[in-house]
Amino acid sequence: MDTLHLAQQPRPLPSGFLAALQARFGERCATGQAVREHHGRDESPYRPMLPDAVVFAQSVEDVVWVARHCHAHGIALIPYGAGSSLEGHVLAVQGGVSLDLSGMNQILAVHAEDSTVTVQAGVTRKQLNEALRDTGLFFPIDPGADASLGGMSATRASGTNAVRYGTMRENVMSLKVVLADGRVIETANRARKSSAGYDLTRLFVGSEGTLGIIAEVTVRLYPQPEAVSAAICNFADLDSAVQSVIQIIQMGIPVARVEFMDSGAVRATNRYSHLSLRESPLLLFEFHGSPAGVREQAELVQLITHEHGGQDFEWAERPEDRSRLWTARHNAYFAGLQLRPGCRSSTTDVCVPISRLAECVGETARELDQASFPYTIVGHVGDGNFHVLMLLDPDNPDEWAESERLNQRLVQRAIDMDGTCTGEHGIGLHKQAFMRAEHGDDALDVMRALKAALDPGDILNPGKMLPPPTA
Amino acid sequence: MDTLHLAQQPRPLPSGFLAALQARFGERCATGQAVREHHGRDESPYRPMLPDAVVFAQSVEDVVWVARHCHAHGIALIPYGAGSSLEGHVLAVQGGVSLDLSGMNQILAVHAEDSTVTVQAGVTRKQLNEALRDTGLFFPIDPGADASLGGMSATRASGTNAVRYGTMRENVMSLKVVLADGRVIETANRARKSSAGYDLTRLFVGSEGTLGIIAEVTVRLYPQPEAVSAAICNFADLDSAVQSVIQIIQMGIPVARVEFMDSGAVRATNRYSHLSLRESPLLLFEFHGSPAGVREQAELVQLITHEHGGQDFEWAERPEDRSRLWTARHNAYFAGLQLRPGCRSSTTDVCVPISRLAECVGETARELDQASFPYTIVGHVGDGNFHVLMLLDPDNPDEWAESERLNQRLVQRAIDMDGTCTGEHGIGLHKQAFMRAEHGDDALDVMRALKAALDPGDILNPGKMLPPPTA
Repeated sequence: MDTLHLAQQPRPLPSGFLAALQARFGERCATGQAVREHHGRDESPYRPMLPDAVVFAQSVEDVVWVARHCHAHGIALIPYGAGSSLEGHVLAVQGGVSLDLSGMNQILAVHAEDSTVTVQAGVTRKQLNEALRDTGLFFPIDPGADASLGGMSATRASGTNAVRYGTMRENVMSLKVVLADGRVIETANRARKSSAGYDLTRLFVGSEGTLGIIAEVTVRLYPQPEAVSAAICNFADLDSAVQSVIQIIQMGIPVARVEFMDSGAVRATNRYSHLSLRESPLLLFEFHGSPAGVREQAELVQLITHEHGGQDFEWAERPEDRSRLWTARHNAYFAGLQLRPGCRSSTTDVCVPISRLAECVGETARELDQASFPYTIVGHVGDGNFHVLMLLDPDNPDEWAESERLNQRLVQRAIDMDGTCTGEHGIGLHKQAFMRAEHGDDALDVMRALKAALDPGDILNPGKMLPPPTA
Repeated sequence: MDTLHLAQQPRPLPSGFLAALQARFGERCATGQAVREHHGRDESPYRPMLPDAVVFAQSVEDVVWVARHCHAHGIALIPYGAGSSLEGHVLAVQGGVSLDLSGMNQILAVHAEDSTVTVQAGVTRKQLNEALRDTGLFFPIDPGADASLGGMSATRASGTNAVRYGTMRENVMSLKVVLADGRVIETANRARKSSAGYDLTRLFVGSEGTLGIIAEVTVRLYPQPEAVSAAICNFADLDSAVQSVIQIIQMGIPVARVEFMDSGAVRATNRYSHLSLRESPLLLFEFHGSPAGVREQAELVQLITHEHGGQDFEWAERPEDRSRLWTARHNAYFAGLQLRPGCRSSTTDVCVPISRLAECVGETARELDQASFPYTIVGHVGDGNFHVLMLLDPDNPDEWAESERLNQRLVQRAIDMDGTCTGEHGIGLHKQAFMRAEHGDDALDVMRALKAALDPGDILNPGKMLPPPTA
């Protein structure tokens, strides 16, 4: 596919540019092939596109210095977190500097009494929850990878808990952002709500590194629930599982998690995580609340799943069983890859209004059943969000072409249902072609105007998110 | 005070401008003094500043036509909803056209199965809930006034339910916006979450009519709770009441509402709404959930308030009693005005992290006790948000000056506590002077860049929100 074989279009580096970086950062400025390759790729199917240099930032001052230097010379600057993005977000399509923020991994301020925490951008979600363990609080957003908070903010990430706790959109309270020219702003304060001016926080959340470099993040925390229980329920078919979810959401039952796995995903997970789940479409639930509240939610959910032919409603009450189950769910992506040894994957996600979910998943599965490669479907179905993982022969262009066609049809189906081309993975390189269909020309022009206003030299993660204007 | 006696700086109308409006809109374009006066004021203490004409829009096409006409001639255009803003938002500081959207009051699409509704901008919150009554769903955001959904979006409104259900920021899913030049965009779709591009919805929510004209609004709805109960609890002093709230929030008890009233506000409410509440600082609670869940929440809350010396924990179980209580709370503003017949009010709101709330309210009350005029304090304290209503002699400039000084000190106190100069009322005219202290020069410049990108001719509600750059 054309879109998978993009040619890199590097900007010429002015003489002395690299030398100045090296003089400032010493060993923290790397130009070796291996480091550049590592920073020129993510979990997407694209071949790497290498930056000219990688700088390992340790402070806001480092970020400011690099931004000023790139700004002065018109050189591309790509913020890099954990490298776990899925749509080509961090590839250096115009070369330039990859700014690795993973060394900025300090937890700056835990305000337990306000249920907020401020961290440097490189702190990962697991690191954060580890650090919070003794506070009685936790941070719920959990994309599959152990992503960094900066990267999660930049892609507007979510995960399995979003149905109850929201996404990064709802949970980022404030950001410290370094602008294209090196100015530093705070997007908000720690008040729970404010009507004071434009919502700069939400402008940068989901901006994929194209409007500014997120250096610090303040997020909301939640009390660890008094009681937690998890359950698995098997279904005869995909539709019965999804219909159960629709009814649960419409009734407003505050489930903390409700995840769908098709039988392929269950099979892959059993093998990868040494489980023995029944290999049929299933739902994984988690309930948070008081002991009585959890019991009540679970009883209602059991009633609803039973009406839809759900079987083997099985409890995982012990923390270690729950943890095993959710680890397995988080590893579903890696498990899927093992279904076809040596494959590369193309993964896609869409999100639709819940009333259209069964139709959207059903039509998608019927099409994928005709494909010449294996696939799995998993989903944060409580949000109307699901993922397709297509396992492709890296040397067979026909399979790649077929997967791109299927992806295109899936996305168009979601958009036609008043949904979105991506619920949580973001646009990066791979989904730019859908931005116009989803937003329309005029809204896309508004986005371009915002980009031009904040980054007139187009140095911040250039070539991402916004498709080039058509001639 | 200078800020309360702003001089209008009208732009000259080109010849034929009004005639063209009148030719297009006939009687729906009004230039009479009374109509212009009505549209040149809101609930703020400012004297009216009259637009040159008022157009009553009935369709998106009307809005587009007016935007194009004003854009072509560089004339100010001010969207007008219910006129219930509190900080001078709708005053025509540069004359021009006030575009009254109250006639656009159709409910366009109830998607009960997705818990969403799409309405024209002029639909009010009460009208919406009336229309939803038989669906089993409701819309929770409830500023004091029966504001329009368009206006509520534009000011990022909230109200008594925000502690549980969030504000307009969390509950607007998508907007249809007419841009300064008449182009029309949809900011999003009806998917529960999306990572596809910049968050245009949140850009326009809270933009106070300065970036575009909100013509249609899609919001989230919630199932009417199975069980509801309300309770009142009296306290010996302000601090005990606020400390109770802090503990309730920190424990994560999902109260639907928790409102504070100081004894002055209770006294005013008793008189205005013919109630006989004990005239001490009190908290009003509401609990939503299953019958067992509500009982559980209420028991925990009762335990906490008791620890802080709360007395007379009194239930309002019957819907009519609850409704009477909340109507009285919503009328607290009008009730307050009656404490001093003939007065005009200056009302202000701030929001701070919950851990600082007791300190912030306490210091504020101590200062106000020294003031030469009466006041009341009420608050959506679960969010850390509270309001001060100062009752002023309209003919006594000393009182106005004193109230402005107190307001300034309150706002600075909130900002110093990592809070905001306005939790829900917005900036309008009255709070512009605090934007710099709250956001800093660079963030303010980013906001100005956004404004310039979307409204380069500065025709949309000019002179609002963003303070003029200092020389």
